[in-house]
Amino acid sequence: MTKRAETDHPVHELIASRWSPYGFSDRAVSRDDLCCLLEAARWAASSYNEQPWSYLIATRDDAEQFQRLLACLVEPNREWAQQASALVITVAARNFSRNGKPNAAAWHDVGLASGNISLEATARGIAVHQMIGILPDVARETFGIPDDHDAVTGLAIGYAADPTSLDDSLRQRDTSPRQRKRLADFVFTARWGQRSPLVE
Amino acid sequence: MTKRAETDHPVHELIASRWSPYGFSDRAVSRDDLCCLLEAARWAASSYNEQPWSYLIATRDDAEQFQRLLACLVEPNREWAQQASALVITVAARNFSRNGKPNAAAWHDVGLASGNISLEATARGIAVHQMIGILPDVARETFGIPDDHDAVTGLAIGYAADPTSLDDSLRQRDTSPRQRKRLADFVFTARWGQRSPLVE
Repeated sequence: MTKRAETDHPVHELIASRWSPYGFSDRAVSRDDLCCLLEAARWAASSYNEQPWSYLIATRDDAEQFQRLLACLVEPNREWAQQASALVITVAARNFSRNGKPNAAAWHDVGLASGNISLEATARGIAVHQMIGILPDVARETFGIPDDHDAVTGLAIGYAADPTSLDDSLRQRDTSPRQRKRLADFVFTARWGQRSPLVE
Repeated sequence: MTKRAETDHPVHELIASRWSPYGFSDRAVSRDDLCCLLEAARWAASSYNEQPWSYLIATRDDAEQFQRLLACLVEPNREWAQQASALVITVAARNFSRNGKPNAAAWHDVGLASGNISLEATARGIAVHQMIGILPDVARETFGIPDDHDAVTGLAIGYAADPTSLDDSLRQRDTSPRQRKRLADFVFTARWGQRSPLVE
């Protein structure tokens, strides 16, 4: 299944066709592909090249570790994410390693890295569903995440399911159209809320 | 100039070839291209599809607005970013619009959107240099950013300069090799710090 964005301006195919399925098929993502997804994260930009991201990962064939990661998700996410081929908890280092000072960009830069994962996945026909709905305290306790690091998001990684194979609730979510604000609603010039002439 | 990442695993050309120049040429980025970059941001994933990002933008041919944005950068960034074709301040909405509750993913999701901008730019031969080095209070006052929003980063957008046209300091920065931690340093399974067998 594909779910291309209906864009007002042309964008690269990877960006237009990335989406976040709730339904995943049984097909496993290969170890080689997972390495490429993580390699894509590796090359994201970051403030002072700090690379504040870490990834806790398990594949479904490692049932014990997969269940430990699944337990770090809020219950509504566990229901569908248990079908993913791999699960990830992303982690941000709050402070710069070079001087111990707070890194205001830490969570932002985890977003940059995880965005690369999503696009690399899209290029490989794989889907990633990012979730803020995790239990950070459970993740910290389960995996021993240090105090100066934060669990940020969960990632469900797999091949999107054929929607006809899904129950009504998931099928409805996966086949509903993708919607966004318009550029004029969030691109401003001169003053907050003043639509930029560039996007008129 | 290109500056491809030396990857340990293959990644998509857009991800491998994205980089953050300090030197920008005089060539202007077209309005059409800027719209496509912003459109790419529009289609990023976000928690509950909140789309917490906004973009304050000016092009160099709008000298007054360009200078107002330039003044929101820390001084060392102003020196080189003044050569960019367009400047942006990214802004995050701290709370969900649907219920007013804090959105823990706000800064993270601005990162997702800005990452899309960088990759769309790369696809068009354009470069984006993201900066955490901004003056958020100046941005708030200058543009009237509301209290429940945060200025997050600056973006310098343009065509990378021919390094031979740059002074020694910028040329050195733009021609130095790109370096990253190895996957084994940040991809863990079972326990924080325990290298994942997937990336061994």
